[in-house]
Amino acid sequence: MNHEFNAISQLFQQRVLLKHPSTQIANGDDASVHQVPHGMEFVMSTDTAVLGVHWPEDMPLHIAGHRAVAAALSDLAAMGAKPAWIWLAIMAKDINDLEAMSHGIVEACLAYDVELAGGDTVYSPTNTMSVTVGGLIPQGCAMTRNAAKIDDEVWLVGNLGLSALGLKQWQDGTKDGAFVPCFQHIEPLLEKGITLRKEGIQCCMDISDGLLQDAGHIAKASNLALSIHIEQLQQLPSYLRLESTHKNQALTLTLNGGEDYALLFTAPASQHLALQKLGAYTIGVCTKGSGVQLLHHNKEIEYNIKGYDHFG
Amino acid sequence: MNHEFNAISQLFQQRVLLKHPSTQIANGDDASVHQVPHGMEFVMSTDTAVLGVHWPEDMPLHIAGHRAVAAALSDLAAMGAKPAWIWLAIMAKDINDLEAMSHGIVEACLAYDVELAGGDTVYSPTNTMSVTVGGLIPQGCAMTRNAAKIDDEVWLVGNLGLSALGLKQWQDGTKDGAFVPCFQHIEPLLEKGITLRKEGIQCCMDISDGLLQDAGHIAKASNLALSIHIEQLQQLPSYLRLESTHKNQALTLTLNGGEDYALLFTAPASQHLALQKLGAYTIGVCTKGSGVQLLHHNKEIEYNIKGYDHFG
Repeated sequence: MNHEFNAISQLFQQRVLLKHPSTQIANGDDASVHQVPHGMEFVMSTDTAVLGVHWPEDMPLHIAGHRAVAAALSDLAAMGAKPAWIWLAIMAKDINDLEAMSHGIVEACLAYDVELAGGDTVYSPTNTMSVTVGGLIPQGCAMTRNAAKIDDEVWLVGNLGLSALGLKQWQDGTKDGAFVPCFQHIEPLLEKGITLRKEGIQCCMDISDGLLQDAGHIAKASNLALSIHIEQLQQLPSYLRLESTHKNQALTLTLNGGEDYALLFTAPASQHLALQKLGAYTIGVCTKGSGVQLLHHNKEIEYNIKGYDHFG
Repeated sequence: MNHEFNAISQLFQQRVLLKHPSTQIANGDDASVHQVPHGMEFVMSTDTAVLGVHWPEDMPLHIAGHRAVAAALSDLAAMGAKPAWIWLAIMAKDINDLEAMSHGIVEACLAYDVELAGGDTVYSPTNTMSVTVGGLIPQGCAMTRNAAKIDDEVWLVGNLGLSALGLKQWQDGTKDGAFVPCFQHIEPLLEKGITLRKEGIQCCMDISDGLLQDAGHIAKASNLALSIHIEQLQQLPSYLRLESTHKNQALTLTLNGGEDYALLFTAPASQHLALQKLGAYTIGVCTKGSGVQLLHHNKEIEYNIKGYDHFG
């Protein structure tokens, strides 16, 4: 442990004063200790962001810090859990970079009401953040990837393709591009996730690598096929927004663009009206078979199923 | 996410077949979900190891992988918790390095009976592992740094200085040095931690940065002073071992050498006999005041309190 880092690290941790009611022993000891309320389970996920891999070299580091926390929290949204704590590993190449990343991390902790329950701050030649997030959920209610049923409708809430276009604009030098904020600011759909769980949704995931690739995870885990209808995708508000200025790329961005952190879920047709009222959009249906089929006017079309490979 | 990495990552995760009874949803979904048994709390800590900072460039990566998990688990030992799960972020510069690190990680999961409950595998120019560990403990029983009382005896179980000398031997080119295994293999004192907690010990921490530095954390958190007696340190088996071949360095290594992951704890004199039977050694006493005093025949001596700054 670099001692100067240690000091700075303590400094910024003190700025996150939130303490979750479950926490018995908070940040500052060898480990944190938490009680899970009766009837609840705890939910955990880890997400890592590396400079030059998950964010561009020339992007301000406080933005990267906020993104790292928000992206990690999206996994809790996908389960329908309420976030409570993060444990944070910051690997920074110098103190200035550490402070910049910390600034965004603290901002995100406050914005999403999570306690910084522990962490490790170390020197590394490569600025990196690894964020472990924890939350709470009523027992047996977590939404999973393997709970889709044949004939379920496939739903989406949130955007597709906007973040990928924003990154492209940034990389192309259009730093003030209209879509750049969609890449820079990740909004985990935490409230939506909780609402879906309360509606009884059982199958859900967040889209980080692109619709087609991530839909494949549900298909595989649930042992069925997902048929996605292009006409339905073309009704999505994010598609319409892409189409208005980037018509030729709108479909590809919608199918393959990652990091908008929309929620993809399935539900029986009986829930159709209730889900529409929540601002979700039907984009397809679950069928017998395997993998993801893309349909245009009910005719399957060939499409390159290629997710969003960071900077690839 | 690099897709090839993803595949490899899944492959190695399948080798860890352990599933903790608490786990409701295991590795492979957006997050893992766990139930905490009635009357228990969960304990969490994060520890990060960076190539060239926490282990030498020329050390085999599977050894670094095992060390990363073992070092993280030591924080649970310090609390008196029983380990249950890890969530792992591996940052690897290529697939060969990923496989090598994974090999050691899997080995450690099996050795310490912990479930690989989740993780993230990403490309990075700097090989790094960030390990979040979780365990269980009966409610209200966690050992902390702030529970030392004036007149408590200061105790140590485990080694001091052997790891630091082993690292020095490795760096000096004596790859088969007698102390090299003490650096390469970290043994978290999990059973000892649980035993101490069951004995009613309330104040404990693990020594990762050196005795004098870490003792200062207990002094500060408990708002008292720790007086360490050199004559008592000289009774430690690890001191005697150092003295037999490295007489001139034995005391400095004992005071400042890090990464042996001994447990430092305090207890009222009434527990003296019971603790001696456990193989622990008294090294000092808690007094009014602040900081750490080093005494030789009851006379305070000046000493450079400088912890183990990795490779520094």
